Amino acid sequence: MGTFAIGVDLGGTNLRIAAVDGNGKVLEKITTSTEVVRGRDRVIDEMCAAIQQTAVKFRAGRELAGIGIGVPGIIEMQTGMVRESPNLPGWQDYPVREEIETRLRTTVILENDANAAALGESWLGAAAGVEDMCMLTLGTGVGGGVVLNGRVWRGMTGMAGELGHVNVAPDGPRCNCGSHGCLEQFASATAVKRMAVEAVATGKAPELARAMNADPEFSSKVVHQMATQGDEPAREIFRRVGEALGLVLADLVNIFNLPMYVIGGGVASAWDAFAPTMLEKVRANSFVYRATAPAENPRGVQGSSVPDDVLPARRTTVITRALLGSDAGLFGAARLPMILSKGRLPETALKRA
Amino acid sequence: MGTFAIGVDLGGTNLRIAAVDGNGKVLEKITTSTEVVRGRDRVIDEMCAAIQQTAVKFRAGRELAGIGIGVPGIIEMQTGMVRESPNLPGWQDYPVREEIETRLRTTVILENDANAAALGESWLGAAAGVEDMCMLTLGTGVGGGVVLNGRVWRGMTGMAGELGHVNVAPDGPRCNCGSHGCLEQFASATAVKRMAVEAVATGKAPELARAMNADPEFSSKVVHQMATQGDEPAREIFRRVGEALGLVLADLVNIFNLPMYVIGGGVASAWDAFAPTMLEKVRANSFVYRATAPAENPRGVQGSSVPDDVLPARRTTVITRALLGSDAGLFGAARLPMILSKGRLPETALKRA
Repeated sequence: MGTFAIGVDLGGTNLRIAAVDGNGKVLEKITTSTEVVRGRDRVIDEMCAAIQQTAVKFRAGRELAGIGIGVPGIIEMQTGMVRESPNLPGWQDYPVREEIETRLRTTVILENDANAAALGESWLGAAAGVEDMCMLTLGTGVGGGVVLNGRVWRGMTGMAGELGHVNVAPDGPRCNCGSHGCLEQFASATAVKRMAVEAVATGKAPELARAMNADPEFSSKVVHQMATQGDEPAREIFRRVGEALGLVLADLVNIFNLPMYVIGGGVASAWDAFAPTMLEKVRANSFVYRATAPAENPRGVQGSSVPDDVLPARRTTVITRALLGSDAGLFGAARLPMILSKGRLPETALKRA
Repeated sequence: MGTFAIGVDLGGTNLRIAAVDGNGKVLEKITTSTEVVRGRDRVIDEMCAAIQQTAVKFRAGRELAGIGIGVPGIIEMQTGMVRESPNLPGWQDYPVREEIETRLRTTVILENDANAAALGESWLGAAAGVEDMCMLTLGTGVGGGVVLNGRVWRGMTGMAGELGHVNVAPDGPRCNCGSHGCLEQFASATAVKRMAVEAVATGKAPELARAMNADPEFSSKVVHQMATQGDEPAREIFRRVGEALGLVLADLVNIFNLPMYVIGGGVASAWDAFAPTMLEKVRANSFVYRATAPAENPRGVQGSSVPDDVLPARRTTVITRALLGSDAGLFGAARLPMILSKGRLPETALKRA
């Protein structure tokens, strides 16, 4: 009898549930809207009902390995509480795990959504088969996840991997986290839009100004389109995105010396606009990168695929785009119950000899 | 029959060898000068003779677990080559491990000296019993080491943990690594001295100028003495040290969420001069630190000892001074053969499913 797991991606706007088998094959995928306004109890009720339904459906022929849930926020692992979640207003200090487990009468594994996405990409995506990797998710904010030995590195309380808050410019724009100049302030969709507004304010970005006035839905995507069309102020914005990403990636390469760093999220679709500056910056700022970068062949660095045949001999640092899109978090969540988690609890970590 | 290991700390000026048993008890410790000028073969010859002598001496009653050697430079693990070593001129691309193993007719484990120091502090020092920790060594340069699950995180090629080259100020002073504004440019003994020279050049640091003229051996220690005596320009220099350390520690807390971060090396003796600014900066820049910092009691944060009785209940981030001084690297080197290393080789890391 085969096994399967249920992965849940609890977003601020969508709730997605998938039943996935041990090989990553999707048995079923459900997407519904998350009606956050109706309150957290209602959201949890509906989510649990959908999980229950999926579990019953596939339990006939398979064994349920477990349930993993990706949550957009900081989760304290010991208590299963949401400590901070801008996308789930009113959920702060809410015992999510307990509420879910009570309804389902079984244990579930919670994980930060960016950590789940990193695990998903390392299982079935850009880093498939690469057991040690980092992922940056460039969305409304910038999320991060670190996978070591095939498992999410959670740290002492489950708050590890907050790569969007690595400092880029100590005197930079104030960040929601309370600091200044975090990566998130330069490489998120929100940041791209803010930089466009700033550029328009200087009076030196007439095309951006026109687009902004014409389009009430003006977004980072429009800035990217304009960069692609050669608009210089728009191109400059993505060079700044690339510079910030490059600085942080250089740090991460010097710190971790991993074989692969993956960049996903909506803003990653502007890869062509920011990657050249990003890679130039990584090369300038990380001697570990210079020592381990692919020598001549840019395959696997600028591109997204790593040819299988060159892998065994490689000791190179690959920086590449994510492959799974919004499914990364869903696959990662399903992967959680299939593996043991590695970030240890402080009780064991701090036990004295 | 008990076991013992031989740890070697191959410094630019001193060669130290210790025989250590499984509990960390030192059976013998030898210190000789490293006569680098006489060439690498001579250094290796003398080191191997001393190792051999120690091995024979204690092999009678005990089993030799192995030999670990801390080297001040970047070591490529797969080849056992020194890739970069400012303190061992002429050793670049020299197959150190092979040369040693040929002479000793046994395998040895090489490790970067800062990684070895981190392992030493996590075995017997400030982080004894804490299996996950980071250490920064503030010496002539700034070294770093990351210990996860009680083992050095080496990364893909053994170059992980280069925490001295995390970026602090993209437009800061040029670093030997080729980048600009690395932590090393603000928190090493060399940087303290450079900042003193800069302060004197402004004409606004008369006491520093006087000390510099009077003392041909003027060093970071003198700057610290003057800061302790209340000299404002000297105090300002250590506030800058603290600010740079705080920025990097904030990043490391957000990235790893570890229970303990240890600061060692010569400059760490100026703890009182830089720690207040450092901790203030960590608090301002890391929301993971704010969420996990000891609430009221500053013990274990500013101080260097963590009371045993409060440990099991703690989920706090401790930032503290190293305890083992220059023995950290020696103990860490001896520890290497006692444990299996965790940073994996790329052959296994990149093997596709």
